[in-house]
Amino acid sequence: MDPELQRRRLSEARVGRLATVGATGEPHVVPVCFVLDGDAVYWAVDHKPKATRRLRRLANIAANPVAELVVDHYSEDWTELWWVRVGAAAAVLEPGAETEHALDLLSAKYEQYRDRRPEGPVVRLTPRRWSAWSGSAQ
Amino acid sequence: MDPELQRRRLSEARVGRLATVGATGEPHVVPVCFVLDGDAVYWAVDHKPKATRRLRRLANIAANPVAELVVDHYSEDWTELWWVRVGAAAAVLEPGAETEHALDLLSAKYEQYRDRRPEGPVVRLTPRRWSAWSGSAQ
Repeated sequence: MDPELQRRRLSEARVGRLATVGATGEPHVVPVCFVLDGDAVYWAVDHKPKATRRLRRLANIAANPVAELVVDHYSEDWTELWWVRVGAAAAVLEPGAETEHALDLLSAKYEQYRDRRPEGPVVRLTPRRWSAWSGSAQ
Repeated sequence: MDPELQRRRLSEARVGRLATVGATGEPHVVPVCFVLDGDAVYWAVDHKPKATRRLRRLANIAANPVAELVVDHYSEDWTELWWVRVGAAAAVLEPGAETEHALDLLSAKYEQYRDRRPEGPVVRLTPRRWSAWSGSAQ
């Protein structure tokens, strides 16, 4: 899969799954809504009801500032399967201009956020490694 | 989400995303086809073309025998979102009766495997912690 197609598929995906690692080395994975902006991926803690505001994914990134995000397509025709992964440095942003910029982009991508702007915090992923796979030769 | 519904959603999902952790603490996440069998989840290395037989997810489990699997539903109506996660002990099985049993179950769930039985190895996840979330009150 050429780099341009990897980028487009990541950018257009409506949901990805984000893996982080806890302080004691255990993996954690959750679906996330996100936006790709140049060399950054942003996602935000939003208003979707959570068990707690102290999310494990945020605690994990504070303890171990790395993450991996995968977007993929599932089909019963396995020649149509594909995924794109980015291994990234991760940082929880302080409130400020970059957070507002990211929330603007998230609201542009997801109309659900226009009705109710996320409170944050926002997390920035800085991709360090892209990889991709496709069930066809593509 | 009650435990029975969590179990059913995990069992019926056609694809999940599996997170593991590398020897140096970095997260790794990939889509996987899997089957739930009592208190075990099985997935197999299959014939889908891979860059290498020495998959990172297997090396990770050998170094750090834990994994987390998430299944989820995405919809533009965010009240319909849900996910179910299992944190698990993970083990790469040696060839033998349990591997053949798992491959039988995977072939029963996925007709794609009936045409071409996976060569394996098979990985067994033993759930230690279930969690779930739903965008509705359900």
